[in-house]
Amino acid sequence: MERGKTENRKVDGKLVAELEKLLPTDQVRTIGPELRVALQDGTGSRGIKGEADALVLPTDTEEVAKVLAWCYEHGVPLTVRGGGTGLAGGAVPDGGVVLSLERLDRIRSIDPELWRMEVEAGVRTATVHRIALENGLLFPPDPGASEQSTIGGNIATNAGGPHAFRYGVTGSWVTGIEAVVPPGEILTSGGPLRKNVAGLDLTGLMIASEGTLGIVTAAWLRLVPAPEERGVVVGFYPDARSGCDAIGMIMGSGIQPTALEFLDRGALESSLGSFPSQAPDKAGFAVIAETDGTPEEVTRVVDELEEAMTEGALLAPVRITDHSAIRAFWTWRDGVSIAVTAQRGGKISEDVVVPIEALADAVEETVAIGARHDLPACSWGHAGDGNLHSSFLVDLSNPDEMRRGNEAAAEIFDMAMRLGGSISGEHGIGSLKTAHVEDALGPVAVRLQAEVKKVFDPKLLLNPGKKIPLP
Amino acid sequence: MERGKTENRKVDGKLVAELEKLLPTDQVRTIGPELRVALQDGTGSRGIKGEADALVLPTDTEEVAKVLAWCYEHGVPLTVRGGGTGLAGGAVPDGGVVLSLERLDRIRSIDPELWRMEVEAGVRTATVHRIALENGLLFPPDPGASEQSTIGGNIATNAGGPHAFRYGVTGSWVTGIEAVVPPGEILTSGGPLRKNVAGLDLTGLMIASEGTLGIVTAAWLRLVPAPEERGVVVGFYPDARSGCDAIGMIMGSGIQPTALEFLDRGALESSLGSFPSQAPDKAGFAVIAETDGTPEEVTRVVDELEEAMTEGALLAPVRITDHSAIRAFWTWRDGVSIAVTAQRGGKISEDVVVPIEALADAVEETVAIGARHDLPACSWGHAGDGNLHSSFLVDLSNPDEMRRGNEAAAEIFDMAMRLGGSISGEHGIGSLKTAHVEDALGPVAVRLQAEVKKVFDPKLLLNPGKKIPLP
Repeated sequence: MERGKTENRKVDGKLVAELEKLLPTDQVRTIGPELRVALQDGTGSRGIKGEADALVLPTDTEEVAKVLAWCYEHGVPLTVRGGGTGLAGGAVPDGGVVLSLERLDRIRSIDPELWRMEVEAGVRTATVHRIALENGLLFPPDPGASEQSTIGGNIATNAGGPHAFRYGVTGSWVTGIEAVVPPGEILTSGGPLRKNVAGLDLTGLMIASEGTLGIVTAAWLRLVPAPEERGVVVGFYPDARSGCDAIGMIMGSGIQPTALEFLDRGALESSLGSFPSQAPDKAGFAVIAETDGTPEEVTRVVDELEEAMTEGALLAPVRITDHSAIRAFWTWRDGVSIAVTAQRGGKISEDVVVPIEALADAVEETVAIGARHDLPACSWGHAGDGNLHSSFLVDLSNPDEMRRGNEAAAEIFDMAMRLGGSISGEHGIGSLKTAHVEDALGPVAVRLQAEVKKVFDPKLLLNPGKKIPLP
Repeated sequence: MERGKTENRKVDGKLVAELEKLLPTDQVRTIGPELRVALQDGTGSRGIKGEADALVLPTDTEEVAKVLAWCYEHGVPLTVRGGGTGLAGGAVPDGGVVLSLERLDRIRSIDPELWRMEVEAGVRTATVHRIALENGLLFPPDPGASEQSTIGGNIATNAGGPHAFRYGVTGSWVTGIEAVVPPGEILTSGGPLRKNVAGLDLTGLMIASEGTLGIVTAAWLRLVPAPEERGVVVGFYPDARSGCDAIGMIMGSGIQPTALEFLDRGALESSLGSFPSQAPDKAGFAVIAETDGTPEEVTRVVDELEEAMTEGALLAPVRITDHSAIRAFWTWRDGVSIAVTAQRGGKISEDVVVPIEALADAVEETVAIGARHDLPACSWGHAGDGNLHSSFLVDLSNPDEMRRGNEAAAEIFDMAMRLGGSISGEHGIGSLKTAHVEDALGPVAVRLQAEVKKVFDPKLLLNPGKKIPLP
């Protein structure tokens, strides 16, 4: 793996034994072959794997604090782990201890009539969705892999998803956190309150910090009444330009879709075969717009979307309003990443963001960058947020292709910056992109970030080498 | 005034002359009697006034950087000033230089079809609203005094307002900032991008930092398509309990109002005489709910609100759907603070926040605290956010009443904390509440905040003594 510069500090046998004194024996594991999974996240398919000596499985916040305090006392690196679905290597350890939050999985409270719940970090994202819905409420953030991902991981990366376009990313729905910070203290910031300006916004600072400042152990979430109905319209276009014109028509029409997605030609070639509704044989670009509300509202907005999406379309925009058809549609959409991967067995996919007006450029340049490196390339993602997953199809067992794929990925970051964008919209920086952060943020921001990191983690033991470039 | 502990460091004549070399002469003023207004903010009516020697009026970011660099070089405190409508003394200087951003008032760009604009910090909030609306768009945050307040001040306090209930506070609409940070560098964090997780969230950290970390000089704002119509329903109830029951009925009904406000008995006594629609002669509590959307949606939701608000009401809930009637209604609502003040010539009003379920308790306790200090008391505010403005009516010229009023206000903070709330929902901490921050946040958060403050402002010259208690 591409590793940070921190030297791997091995946990010696004596220290492992000491760690086992802190927690019940079944909560401390020496990492042997059967625990290799704890050394990987969603980048494992790219062959990225870390090193660590112990996996600890605390069951509550006090145990997390004990482990962090112990690591701090002994100078041992600590990498926190959620559902392991991260796509930037944020949970890939660089020696020391891996702390999994999977056993902090309690729903601490839910107050349906007050639109809020308090959950521990290890609760699965899909569980939050499900419990909210059972109470007539919606927790809008819907990153991919929600059955595996945890709310703690979503907070650590400020995860997005299709519905972030209307409803905002994970951080918009977090009113407070409980976290453990060095040297082993419990920090409570915010709470069930929907507004609070006492002090600096430490809640916001912890969100998206990818385990580099502390370990978020629980969160208070804001919810909203669930919409009665949804409706999806899909338009197919000959190319990225005409598709992006349709996106412009939608945004100029006064409609505010809940989701506004796209797939380019290559992404459609991989996935259109299983599209669950009417579709052309081939298309250069697809635009997906969703709305929600009462049945009448949905019908009205779907009509408006259809009108806005007609010009330049290859066929009449496809309306999907039936419950089961909408479910099938989103299942298909969630499967695009897997369908793309299946083409050649692997992919190197980077999550970048550009100003919306540069989306067509970014889509076309992704393909051109792939061509320069002799790799098939495609992109898809959250058009309304200018957030695209630029991907190169590779054979994972071919070192030359992997090298070319990684070189192409580096060019994607340069492209995003050149177009006025940024190197990550929602997947995070992790170990993969830390080397690009200074280019993205500039020296003033990087200096301040490094100093803020040191305020929280003066020994630089939390997720070392990730997210924030240190001088 | 109640001042921070920083000793006032006088700017001597030589330094003033030096400051005048940095900027054109008409942009540097020695603070004489005619410039006393620059020593006050919205707390001036409570007799709170600061001290300073010079007022500087930079016209662009580079000039702001020059002034900050000069202050840093010479160890001179620097207090930044927006529209001067703050209600916590955040812009009241404690010696040194007052920097007004009023001449940084350019709209740098607006992209209506991309739902965004970039504005300088000195642009009035109402100007942002107006320009957005002229382009068919909405900038939802609507704190009071928007004709006077500036977007920079709104960002510095993370200002709220009635529509924060549905749409979120100012920070929810800021995608990036430009700021000057010590020792005089320009920081750009975020931008027009709607999503960005490269690095720690410095944009979020600057929001609500009340000029203690740096000076925000410009911001990128997110906008949404403006709704076609609005509709307001007002219910009058015998007391806080029955009124809060109606709030519970609304929140349990599946409706998501855009605003959910309340006025208690005392606030109604001050203001009901000018209520622009049908109203009872007297009432113990009023609940205001607003919705927006198409005409059909508004009619439907207004019907639903009316139904949810009927039980326990003194008369049938009042429906306001006509454009001019809605305008008249909100003008009345915006005038509540002035109407309350007019009762006895002055008021001491504190902005606190409690969990929604504790709102009735907070309303009743406010009155009881007033009674203990022999002062008429009332509250009103943003019910859905649990945000109330607890107010004591005083004669400003009566030192004994002012003393009792300030004692009562301190009890309001204790009450908010006891009810699981916080000491400020939207007005900020400023100079008035800094002494209460440690109680509100606890020692771990306060330690981290003080250290983060020192990262940005190692000489502790920016708005000294405000917001963050330092050891």
